[in-house]
Amino acid sequence: MNREVVLRLSKYRRLLQKLKVLGLERVFSNNLGDALGVTPALVRKDFSNLKITGNKRGGYIIDELIASIDLILGKNQPREIVIVGCGKIGTALMQYRGLEKDGINIAAGFDIKPEKVSYKGEIPVLGIEELENFIKSRQIKIGVISVPESAATDVFEKMINAGIIGFLNFSPVELKYSKDSIHFDNNNSYVINNINLAVEIENLFFYVNNSQAENS
Amino acid sequence: MNREVVLRLSKYRRLLQKLKVLGLERVFSNNLGDALGVTPALVRKDFSNLKITGNKRGGYIIDELIASIDLILGKNQPREIVIVGCGKIGTALMQYRGLEKDGINIAAGFDIKPEKVSYKGEIPVLGIEELENFIKSRQIKIGVISVPESAATDVFEKMINAGIIGFLNFSPVELKYSKDSIHFDNNNSYVINNINLAVEIENLFFYVNNSQAENS
Repeated sequence: MNREVVLRLSKYRRLLQKLKVLGLERVFSNNLGDALGVTPALVRKDFSNLKITGNKRGGYIIDELIASIDLILGKNQPREIVIVGCGKIGTALMQYRGLEKDGINIAAGFDIKPEKVSYKGEIPVLGIEELENFIKSRQIKIGVISVPESAATDVFEKMINAGIIGFLNFSPVELKYSKDSIHFDNNNSYVINNINLAVEIENLFFYVNNSQAENS
Repeated sequence: MNREVVLRLSKYRRLLQKLKVLGLERVFSNNLGDALGVTPALVRKDFSNLKITGNKRGGYIIDELIASIDLILGKNQPREIVIVGCGKIGTALMQYRGLEKDGINIAAGFDIKPEKVSYKGEIPVLGIEELENFIKSRQIKIGVISVPESAATDVFEKMINAGIIGFLNFSPVELKYSKDSIHFDNNNSYVINNINLAVEIENLFFYVNNSQAENS
């Protein structure tokens, strides 16, 4: 399943939950398509690939859709992550309530600076030297990298050695990945999702400058 | 030019600057390809689309590449943005030094809570009621949305009315967009880049769970 499909499943899941809270029991592919900005045909294709069928008059049963998507996304398994680098971005993520709501639990933050280490907050901040033991003992597989550029590749290697295989990287370093963001090493496949904020904003400037040129 | 190409140009630009600082004057397509995890053929294709040619023995001249990319990305124009919503994520972005380095200047933050309004910091935080005047008078076109879910669509409309056409949206609401993230309204085209952190992490869990199933 490609990345775009998986992202859409997450988005359907989120929307279905909200519709359910509003009391709805059924939903049509064009409702979901409208909300996500995709065609109803694509929604139906996504669901038929999951072996979920609706019917033209009644639509899809929301509870069935949610259960099927949860099975695929592994929502029923414990979902713990770590955050490495507790500067501005890392600390904001640790305090962000949006993850908890989706059942994603931040087990700990890690930082190289001793003055950041703290057991006082809801989520402990540990020294970087405890990273490997902590991750191995908790069998955590997903980590966020929010360290400065100079520390990124070093932290990346430390996390790989500790057993992390899925990375969300906010550092400005493009961590190495193969064409489809998955590369292989000693039978492990790593998934690295690089989010470079400056690149994202630069990308917007490109479109804005070009759309203004077109309009003038 | 599609989004992927523009993102690659930003990444080449970043890498070229670093190579230049190291004293290099020329670079080959396979160096750039290795660093970005793409094929040298794709690098050459990107550059030939920009009418930049290298030669097999000498490679590309770094200064020429940088100048051409800057022209396309509009790097020589003033690049001001606003941040709407000065909670955890918004404040982290305002304090993040990574944008400044790339010549992206945060003109102001905006928040609905009067106690957040402040002219003391390097970047002022203004009340949301000043949004429209500020953006219009400074002719700012790009804005970051980092408000809670409940405020996202309201803030989005306010920003459109003020003249913002490029959006980086960190709220968990998927702001409406057409198939290729650009939709048209009264002759303006809007570009909306939604970054949903929970969705990104969920996506990693999907790959990690599935790669473990394959390996076991």
